[in-house]
Amino acid sequence: MSSSTHPRHLVRLHDLNADELNDLLDLSARIRARTGIATQRPLDGRAIGLLFFRGSLRTRVSLEAAVHSLGGHPINLNAESDFWELEHTEGVVMDGRAPEHIRDAAAVISKYVDAIAIRTAIGHRSWKEERRDLAIEAWTRYADVPVINMESALWHPLQALADLLTLRDELGELRGKRLAISWVQSPQPLSPAPIHSLVSAAMRMGMDVNIAHPPGYELDPGVLEDARQNSDSELRTGLTQKDAAEGARIIYARSWRSLETWDNPTLSASRLAKHADWRITEDLMATGEEARLMHAMPVRRNVEVTDEVLDGERSLILRQAENRLHTQKALLSRFLRP
Amino acid sequence: MSSSTHPRHLVRLHDLNADELNDLLDLSARIRARTGIATQRPLDGRAIGLLFFRGSLRTRVSLEAAVHSLGGHPINLNAESDFWELEHTEGVVMDGRAPEHIRDAAAVISKYVDAIAIRTAIGHRSWKEERRDLAIEAWTRYADVPVINMESALWHPLQALADLLTLRDELGELRGKRLAISWVQSPQPLSPAPIHSLVSAAMRMGMDVNIAHPPGYELDPGVLEDARQNSDSELRTGLTQKDAAEGARIIYARSWRSLETWDNPTLSASRLAKHADWRITEDLMATGEEARLMHAMPVRRNVEVTDEVLDGERSLILRQAENRLHTQKALLSRFLRP
Amino acid sequence: MSSSTHPRHLVRLHDLNADELNDLLDLSARIRARTGIATQRPLDGRAIGLLFFRGSLRTRVSLEAAVHSLGGHPINLNAESDFWELEHTEGVVMDGRAPEHIRDAAAVISKYVDAIAIRTAIGHRSWKEERRDLAIEAWTRYADVPVINMESALWHPLQALADLLTLRDELGELRGKRLAISWVQSPQPLSPAPIHSLVSAAMRMGMDVNIAHPPGYELDPGVLEDARQNSDSELRTGLTQKDAAEGARIIYARSWRSLETWDNPTLSASRLAKHADWRITEDLMATGEEARLMHAMPVRRNVEVTDEVLDGERSLILRQAENRLHTQKALLSRFLRP
Repeated sequence: MSSSTHPRHLVRLHDLNADELNDLLDLSARIRARTGIATQRPLDGRAIGLLFFRGSLRTRVSLEAAVHSLGGHPINLNAESDFWELEHTEGVVMDGRAPEHIRDAAAVISKYVDAIAIRTAIGHRSWKEERRDLAIEAWTRYADVPVINMESALWHPLQALADLLTLRDELGELRGKRLAISWVQSPQPLSPAPIHSLVSAAMRMGMDVNIAHPPGYELDPGVLEDARQNSDSELRTGLTQKDAAEGARIIYARSWRSLETWDNPTLSASRLAKHADWRITEDLMATGEEARLMHAMPVRRNVEVTDEVLDGERSLILRQAENRLHTQKALLSRFLRP
Repeated sequence: MSSSTHPRHLVRLHDLNADELNDLLDLSARIRARTGIATQRPLDGRAIGLLFFRGSLRTRVSLEAAVHSLGGHPINLNAESDFWELEHTEGVVMDGRAPEHIRDAAAVISKYVDAIAIRTAIGHRSWKEERRDLAIEAWTRYADVPVINMESALWHPLQALADLLTLRDELGELRGKRLAISWVQSPQPLSPAPIHSLVSAAMRMGMDVNIAHPPGYELDPGVLEDARQNSDSELRTGLTQKDAAEGARIIYARSWRSLETWDNPTLSASRLAKHADWRITEDLMATGEEARLMHAMPVRRNVEVTDEVLDGERSLILRQAENRLHTQKALLSRFLRP
Repeated sequence: MSSSTHPRHLVRLHDLNADELNDLLDLSARIRARTGIATQRPLDGRAIGLLFFRGSLRTRVSLEAAVHSLGGHPINLNAESDFWELEHTEGVVMDGRAPEHIRDAAAVISKYVDAIAIRTAIGHRSWKEERRDLAIEAWTRYADVPVINMESALWHPLQALADLLTLRDELGELRGKRLAISWVQSPQPLSPAPIHSLVSAAMRMGMDVNIAHPPGYELDPGVLEDARQNSDSELRTGLTQKDAAEGARIIYARSWRSLETWDNPTLSASRLAKHADWRITEDLMATGEEARLMHAMPVRRNVEVTDEVLDGERSLILRQAENRLHTQKALLSRFLRP
């Protein structure tokens, strides 16, 4: 099913230009209102490989439902039961653990499916290594069909698409509105990928972004620098929760691991223990300007955010989750048009 | 895909009234005879989430085949590879192992699918705790779409539906007929859930029920009490195999764990060792009245039941298994009508 | 969905007669050229069970894509998460690890699906035991629907079908052409099943076959003997790589475990260490007669075969992999015709 022209990939949201991005959000809203393409079956007879090198609930279910509702067939593959470690270094003598090279896996799977969606494994190397995103990069190099990033170390464009639609629904024009992002406490912080994609997308849309985090929890400097260079908006980092929330229309909570101690669990845990008071409460929400809560989930209730905020009128978390479905339908129908 | 009205759930067979239950069995028989709804596609474009917190063979394959044959798409999720431990206590500070609350998982998945079928994890707590069935109860509380119980600690309504159809096929009118249920030996006894659902359903249909088991293997007292209160039929428990089989038209075999030693494997094994002679043989079958064998499987041959009985003319076990497919098609087409 | 007549199974390629085999290859080529049956949906409304007792990538994805493109629904089952160990000995007292007998699993699954494809577990017993292929044999005995072998200890007919189509594409008439098969080094040699099926099929088509391997890596004597008896072609074994390659149009590489030390990993590893120089290089390829490379994958690059050969013009490995899809579509549409 490969074509002779180089396929279009979606590794980060930058892979879409501004017009394409706005078109996708418009189409997503039409699909949600059932006036869009969802009543047709643009993926009829087509198969999409979903390769999970890490577990997933929202992404797995929402993407599988999206593929099916467009007439396509999702083929789920789990690293634990269905395949194996893959090598990504070129020219290597493969006498180690990995029995197959991504080059071959990608070329072969491209013969069987019309697109490949991938969630990479992360957490085994230093951040300096992880941030290179070599696995997803290798998939895009060797696949003959579109590769869609379902979350790599650096980026989570599918979450950012849903976040953008939610922001647009809530705020209308985004330019000049303030988004506060707050690191929060968790016994198991996750990856910064959704935040990287969000900062980048929100800045591009003209939002001012405030980021609150304790010392040692800085986001990736390359991502921040790139976001600044592609926007006239203001980006402030390293704020306290209260400073970040002031004037914010949205407070977006996420617990991410320290990039400095990324591959050092012991040091990471001891650093984490010092910041037990970083959580989202009604008091903090009241600091914003009619502020709404966003969170990509999973969320540890009463650790990251209190029940009161999560279940109250300020919470947009279920609309965010629902928008995963609509934006993914829009994306698939655009990326895989016949 | 959630609706504004409260969804209909199927946790136990009581959730269907007598008319609905009879209607379902009639429809199942028509589907089996290919005169029923199976030739249409009532689930066209709809997705059903199948969440397995425990492994399954019959339920997994028969339900997936049923969903597909009705035009729908099953989304399989396995606790081991696809998701994670979920918290079900309300208001808790989630600083333990579970990274997500059922409240959020159920609300989110409800946005993506049209029904959620669940097999809960069991075996980690005392029976007193397990019998509360808090996990499935939490799913029904938080989901916006129908929740179907694929076996919880207490109930297995899908097995009971297939069992009822098999009983009706074999015996015609059930009122006044005698059903013997016999505990049998196994190195790994399973859950009493199918038996709880069966006793409850058979009594409601007017069958007299004899239950044979060694001391210490009593079924859940609350379930038995409830079955007695909703029926004029006779229920006798704690019988010997021979006493139970006398006059019985059906002998239904199952090995269940002792509820008294539910969370104590050592004590459980030592108690189990004393009852090595509890199995179903031709001699026992001959004690009944032209008695037929039923068993929900998996069955340990020549431990629980002899090959001679399993493979002989008295055995209904394959008809029971086949009826899982037909009754589930009927249930899905009724529960998910457009 | 079982029928009253005995179902047709595909355990080894011999289960197809010469006319059927040629018809399948012709149909595969038409499907590839999109003039064949692939535009119809011969599996509409039908389900195929895919049971993996060992992991798989190519087979899993290509077969799932084939089933879907023909209108059917694949039901994937993984031994690790979805089911359990199955007993295959008849008449046994099942007081061991396996909670269910293949007899019952096969009979039940036959009620739910229209065909059962199986990849058996291997590697736990001596080769003398493994070669009996008792598990797949038990499935064929007890299933009421066609059983398709997705790789057992002894055979891999689906790979051989794709290999035959690739050979025919490349060489036209196969009679009298020379095929060299070379054992190659790997830290984790795999099963000889694809080679057994290939030798058998190629000899039957009239190819001369040269097999190169170090001492102790002989293929199964029963398979070789059978191949000789069903062919007038020449079969030479135990050759050096260079001797085998001389005059060969195709050099087929595979690393298989020593059958002599099959269940002895320590002895196996020490034997393996002696043959580190068995790999496919450009020099070796040049020994053949305009020789092309074939490999069933996964391939350990620069251990089994050099990058230069794998990525050069001589390599047919991606065409082989693609042909898995086309030949499986052909097979399914023939085996499961309404």
